[in-house]
Amino acid sequence: MARSKVIVTRQLFDEAQRLLDAKKDELEVVQWPSEKPCDRSWLLEHAKGATGILVMLSDKVDEELLDAAGSQLKVIASFSVGTDHVDRGALKSRNIRLGYTPTCLTDAVADLTIMLILMAQRRGGESISMVRNGEWPQKPWHPLLMTGPQIRGSTVGFLGFGRIAQATLKRLLPFGIKKALYLTSTPGKPVKEDHFGLVQEAAIPIESATGADQLAKESDVVIVGCALTPSTKHLVSTDFFNKMKKLAVVVNIARGPVIDTDALVRALDEEQIFGAGLDVIENEPNIQADHPILKQPRCVLVPHIGSATIETREQMATESVKNVFAGLTGAAMVNEAEL
Amino acid sequence: MARSKVIVTRQLFDEAQRLLDAKKDELEVVQWPSEKPCDRSWLLEHAKGATGILVMLSDKVDEELLDAAGSQLKVIASFSVGTDHVDRGALKSRNIRLGYTPTCLTDAVADLTIMLILMAQRRGGESISMVRNGEWPQKPWHPLLMTGPQIRGSTVGFLGFGRIAQATLKRLLPFGIKKALYLTSTPGKPVKEDHFGLVQEAAIPIESATGADQLAKESDVVIVGCALTPSTKHLVSTDFFNKMKKLAVVVNIARGPVIDTDALVRALDEEQIFGAGLDVIENEPNIQADHPILKQPRCVLVPHIGSATIETREQMATESVKNVFAGLTGAAMVNEAEL
Repeated sequence: MARSKVIVTRQLFDEAQRLLDAKKDELEVVQWPSEKPCDRSWLLEHAKGATGILVMLSDKVDEELLDAAGSQLKVIASFSVGTDHVDRGALKSRNIRLGYTPTCLTDAVADLTIMLILMAQRRGGESISMVRNGEWPQKPWHPLLMTGPQIRGSTVGFLGFGRIAQATLKRLLPFGIKKALYLTSTPGKPVKEDHFGLVQEAAIPIESATGADQLAKESDVVIVGCALTPSTKHLVSTDFFNKMKKLAVVVNIARGPVIDTDALVRALDEEQIFGAGLDVIENEPNIQADHPILKQPRCVLVPHIGSATIETREQMATESVKNVFAGLTGAAMVNEAEL
Repeated sequence: MARSKVIVTRQLFDEAQRLLDAKKDELEVVQWPSEKPCDRSWLLEHAKGATGILVMLSDKVDEELLDAAGSQLKVIASFSVGTDHVDRGALKSRNIRLGYTPTCLTDAVADLTIMLILMAQRRGGESISMVRNGEWPQKPWHPLLMTGPQIRGSTVGFLGFGRIAQATLKRLLPFGIKKALYLTSTPGKPVKEDHFGLVQEAAIPIESATGADQLAKESDVVIVGCALTPSTKHLVSTDFFNKMKKLAVVVNIARGPVIDTDALVRALDEEQIFGAGLDVIENEPNIQADHPILKQPRCVLVPHIGSATIETREQMATESVKNVFAGLTGAAMVNEAEL
């Protein structure tokens, strides 16, 4: 019997690669050989005859690719939490299963969210620049030097209150926050899933906001953690910033376009808010050195590293390989997307 | 009756200044008028006849100042947690009381410690620089781009385990750390004060290390939070770094000289450790732009901003004023140092 063909659009590492290598007798594994993102033309050419394809966020899964592969294709396994790059409808109509890795990066992203909140409040970017530029010797100690707002006693507002937002709230509790507000697609209604039992058990109030207005007005820290949809695009714009407190900060760990970047730059310029911490931004990664957001001393921007821990990326790779195998044999995946 | 004279070596703010201003009928308040640190010559000249002096960390309190003030001096109130700038023996022999502000900055410093741990692990400094330098467009997504170690499952080692270290541990628990080790001046012995009941109640082991060796070998995160004494100076040096794990990070929120800076630079150069986060450093603030530590991409250095929150600095100012008043009237201080 011919071996099943599996395409993998990256070199993997450690356990994930070992799992793949161990199946070399049963599977014909064809891996993109370079460290750069996989060429589309290479993928279309090699997909022919594949039963499974393991893709990255940067590989588009559409009719063209599915046609190139052929009708024997059983499974797409995406090394990602998001599936915006996948045409789910096309998979459904062809009865192809979709695996992804939505849960294993919760801790890594929640950790980074805490880092960004603290950097926005405590002027992390400004402080590092001051020292790197050799300005410290000329700025002797002063009682108000580099002071920022303190998180104790804060109201923290979550735009989107899924697993990552709730994991962030769990970490924030011992910092002494006073209250949490969250806004979901059903304002004023209790959140569907209480992933860590916080809503039930936490000693502070955790309340569903009546709308974006209430959340903007009352929050000292605003955390953007919602999916990008037509109704969340530019949800945080001039109107929202105008309602925020002058000492409040905003953090985005979701998708860039939820925040209107031009409006954010203006809000920072006009000291409408205190600071910002961004893991994502509109038009990433095409952010040139002269981008206006990079001129804002009170804004910290990191290059979409939310899930970038060694442990999480290893686990994402391993789960992706397991999802491909499950797709080939008809077994249960670690995480399968509903189509 | 003549009004008591009080010298204040800074302009204060908000409630602290209001408290002072409200006593203008009873007290002759003489305040250093500039925003720069107080001139020594101004202080010596104006101290004459003072009953109380409110000083900053940058004002030396020694025999010369006490002589200049005269025998009516009853109280020194220092706007600081440390009292290295005060000759305690001289105060004791003259029966002058010393107030300070050791407790109100615990939260602010513990918050900053968490920020520095996460920045050291998650490559915060490197990430910011990459984006600011316009390198993001040329560094497309890669599964191992900017990855660092994850805190979940870590053993966290504390050099010094006082109030701030314990407040840091309290914040770290929901990040999923596995174990805490601490080293105090009595290795292997339980810590004297369990400020937040963690040692008793936490779900993870919190153990006294047998020595610096064990702590260096077993920790994934090392937090320097001890006082600077002859025995802690350069406690973290080449020998310590050699024993650390390659993926471990070190954070210093105590006093610069506990870490041997040259050894740290070598350890980072030779990838003996993964990264570092420093709020303090030897010879601060005299850190020029060409200092070797600033060439280390995996080291984040901020300008001693541990307690730099608006709330904490206001509280330090207010407590300092209250300590002066208490010293004048013989009442109890918010915090009085034992001499």
